[in-house]
Amino acid sequence: MSLADGSSELMFLNALPRPAAKALGCSPEKSILIFDRKLLRVSPEFRSWMRQFPIRYGVSSGESLKDLAAFSRHADRLTKLAGPIAPREMTVVAVGGGSIGDFAGFFASVFKRGVRLVHVPSTWLAALDSSHGGKTALNIHGTKNQFGTFYPAARVLLVRSLLARQPEARIRDAMGELGKIALVDGGAWTRVLGRSRLRGERLIWEFLRPAILSKMRVVRSDPRETKGHRQILNLGHTAGHVFEAEFGWSHGESVAQGVFFALEFARSKGLLSASELARAESLLTKVLQLRRRVSKMKRARFVALLSQDKKRLGAAVVFIFPRGFGRVLRVPLKLEELAREARRQGWLK
Amino acid sequence: MSLADGSSELMFLNALPRPAAKALGCSPEKSILIFDRKLLRVSPEFRSWMRQFPIRYGVSSGESLKDLAAFSRHADRLTKLAGPIAPREMTVVAVGGGSIGDFAGFFASVFKRGVRLVHVPSTWLAALDSSHGGKTALNIHGTKNQFGTFYPAARVLLVRSLLARQPEARIRDAMGELGKIALVDGGAWTRVLGRSRLRGERLIWEFLRPAILSKMRVVRSDPRETKGHRQILNLGHTAGHVFEAEFGWSHGESVAQGVFFALEFARSKGLLSASELARAESLLTKVLQLRRRVSKMKRARFVALLSQDKKRLGAAVVFIFPRGFGRVLRVPLKLEELAREARRQGWLK
Repeated sequence: MSLADGSSELMFLNALPRPAAKALGCSPEKSILIFDRKLLRVSPEFRSWMRQFPIRYGVSSGESLKDLAAFSRHADRLTKLAGPIAPREMTVVAVGGGSIGDFAGFFASVFKRGVRLVHVPSTWLAALDSSHGGKTALNIHGTKNQFGTFYPAARVLLVRSLLARQPEARIRDAMGELGKIALVDGGAWTRVLGRSRLRGERLIWEFLRPAILSKMRVVRSDPRETKGHRQILNLGHTAGHVFEAEFGWSHGESVAQGVFFALEFARSKGLLSASELARAESLLTKVLQLRRRVSKMKRARFVALLSQDKKRLGAAVVFIFPRGFGRVLRVPLKLEELAREARRQGWLK
Repeated sequence: MSLADGSSELMFLNALPRPAAKALGCSPEKSILIFDRKLLRVSPEFRSWMRQFPIRYGVSSGESLKDLAAFSRHADRLTKLAGPIAPREMTVVAVGGGSIGDFAGFFASVFKRGVRLVHVPSTWLAALDSSHGGKTALNIHGTKNQFGTFYPAARVLLVRSLLARQPEARIRDAMGELGKIALVDGGAWTRVLGRSRLRGERLIWEFLRPAILSKMRVVRSDPRETKGHRQILNLGHTAGHVFEAEFGWSHGESVAQGVFFALEFARSKGLLSASELARAESLLTKVLQLRRRVSKMKRARFVALLSQDKKRLGAAVVFIFPRGFGRVLRVPLKLEELAREARRQGWLK
């Protein structure tokens, strides 16, 4: 369904494409449009555009959409809506943020053993991160992403006018992920980013393409996370997932704090030179305008949440240390060692 | 998880392997054993063997196990049972017939985005057909196999002592599938099969290996059913699925009647020489001891069931005509043309 190397075709557009067929690579008549209901309110452009699709399924975004216990009800309605379309000619078009992409992607990956999938992310975070990572996910009893598939979209449409409809907080959400990709990649574009005077939405749109292409290079080298190489994208996520579960922060904010955690951890271990640390902190705080913040949690809870990490191997998790731009170190760490560092950084009660 | 070409490693064994670890390629401590509860009653060997596995999950076989609406309950219990095992070290071991393989295979394919899978089929039909086809499946509202994944088992263990515990009717179920594979393949082994004086279980065990290897060659050439080549395995299944849904016959019996239907259809169209027809009929009736039988159904129902065919393209389905041993013809046929043939053969009221 996707390109032969398991990655997705990208299209950068200023507005939702009319007619939709050419950009989507499919006929709207043979598509199921799964979209965030919120868009009806915030995007008149979307409201008018979606009328090209006779089969539409509006959902509310958020983690409850990804609940496995609710999946069969959605699947039942979607199966009925899809009735007249031959599976081999069908495309699921997902318009929304990460939760909608995860849900619609999972549905597309298992419906009739897989139908074509196109992502049109409506949040900067989904545009940067989930829409072209080839992963889908559902939750069980509130534990995130316990079920899912590797299923790259055939195409990802990045539509500036749609992305521009987001509130300020959603823009900040994406900055942590952008900072992480820049740190992992370290290519020429990250020097341009570090000197950029653009801010907010204009900054992200400007650097969306190199950031996505950078991430896709890593994904292509290890599409199913079997070789370990893809784990470098996990920078900031080990602690980030703990913060997200414990404090209810957004994924973007949690990853940002996870990146600060990893930088400080690397510094304290002497893995990061003063100049590389200064460059990283300047990027995160001046250009991306992120702020370090620390909250308190119980040690037992920190360890329990860590132990749900999918990258866990026995009593250890694979931690990604930044050694500078374009240089990371993967190290299996005992859960206790991570808890000790969390205490040192002031995260534990 | 499976071999690089997407097929499974096969092991032919006379008894359940002790210790299990080497044959399964994993430690029983890090496995989840999903098994047919019926085996506790019919196989003392299995009852003793399974004690090597600390994590066991017994299920009742049949289509209700494959109900998508029930999946999240099973998934919830299995997630709790799996708790202590690191996903990357985990194996799901499925011991049972087709429904258990479909269910456990689907679970393994989506749990933590995919864990290792080993099939130990306990029915001849699963041994011949579903366990190494790389497909998993769930039903929605009684419509079969609407959801699923392509997910080949890492290994398939074919254990004679386990397979030998089946009642006579289950042996007959496998004969239709064996006949189909022989017709599609047409290799030297099918001449030996056509002359064999073995019957029943001894016949199937003798020809299990060449039949499975034949099927796996086809699967390997088109693992995701994207090239059409794998469709030749659908011989007997287009009409067979209709009979299965309408008359409640077993899958094996339905496929057998579907093969008779396809042979007669091919004969009436002049696609099959008298000598090849005689050879096919001799194999099916004398060696495999199958009998043609015809029941009556409504035309509208016949067309409605056909239109659910996953190989449907618009108003046509791809029908596989046998032209002789080792020769099939794939033809897109209008649903009406198939209904006309069903009437001619006496299947419609």
